[in-house]
Amino acid sequence: MFAHPRDPVADLRNLRDSIDNIDTAIVRLLAERFRCTDAIGELKAQRDLPSPDPGRKAEQVARLRHHAAVGKLDPGFAEKFLGFVSHELIRRYELLSRGAIENAPYSTPIYD
Amino acid sequence: MFAHPRDPVADLRNLRDSIDNIDTAIVRLLAERFRCTDAIGELKAQRDLPSPDPGRKAEQVARLRHHAAVGKLDPGFAEKFLGFVSHELIRRYELLSRGAIENAPYSTPIYD
Repeated sequence: MFAHPRDPVADLRNLRDSIDNIDTAIVRLLAERFRCTDAIGELKAQRDLPSPDPGRKAEQVARLRHHAAVGKLDPGFAEKFLGFVSHELIRRYELLSRGAIENAPYSTPIYD
Repeated sequence: MFAHPRDPVADLRNLRDSIDNIDTAIVRLLAERFRCTDAIGELKAQRDLPSPDPGRKAEQVARLRHHAAVGKLDPGFAEKFLGFVSHELIRRYELLSRGAIENAPYSTPIYD
C-alpha cells in the first residue's frame, strides 16, 4: 500500500473542521464558566461572603500561563484570555446594574 | 439522613474550582486551535491555496451564536470571542513578519 498523495485542499478543509469543533467546545465551556460566575454572584447577594483572596488573580494567571506554555501557546495570550473574560464580567455587571438585562443583581466576580 | 446544611464558603470554593478547571480546558483548546491555524499557514506557504470562502466568517459567527444561545450565553459574546482570537492571529502574523518571533512565515488565516 502506498500513502495517499496529499490533497492540500482536503487538508485545509480538515483543519477548518477541527477549528470549528474546537470553537464550539470553547463557547460551550464559556457558557458553563458564566453559569459558575452567576452562581457566585447569587451566593454573594445572599450572604456576606469573603472577597476573593487577593492572591487568587495571581494564582490564576500563573496557572494559565503554565498550561499555555505546556501547550506551546504564548503564555501572554492565556493571560489576555483571562482579561477578556473579566472584561465581559464587568460589562455584564454594569448592564445588570442599569437594569439593561434581567437577572438577579450580583456583585462583580471580576477574577472569580 | 438529613441533607447537609449549605456552607456558602464551601460552595464558593467549589465554584472557583470549577472555574479553574474550565479555564484550564479552554487554554488547552486555544493551544490546539493555534496549532490548526499554524498548520493552515504552513499549507498556504507551500501551495497556492484558495482564500477562505467569503461566507466562512458569517457561517462561523452564526454557528457560535447558535451554540452560545443554546448554552444560555450572550450570543454577542461568542462573536466577540471569535474577534478576540482573530485579533491574536493578526498580531501573531505581524510579529512573524517583523521577525520578532521565530516560526515559518505564513499568511494571515484571519477567520480560519
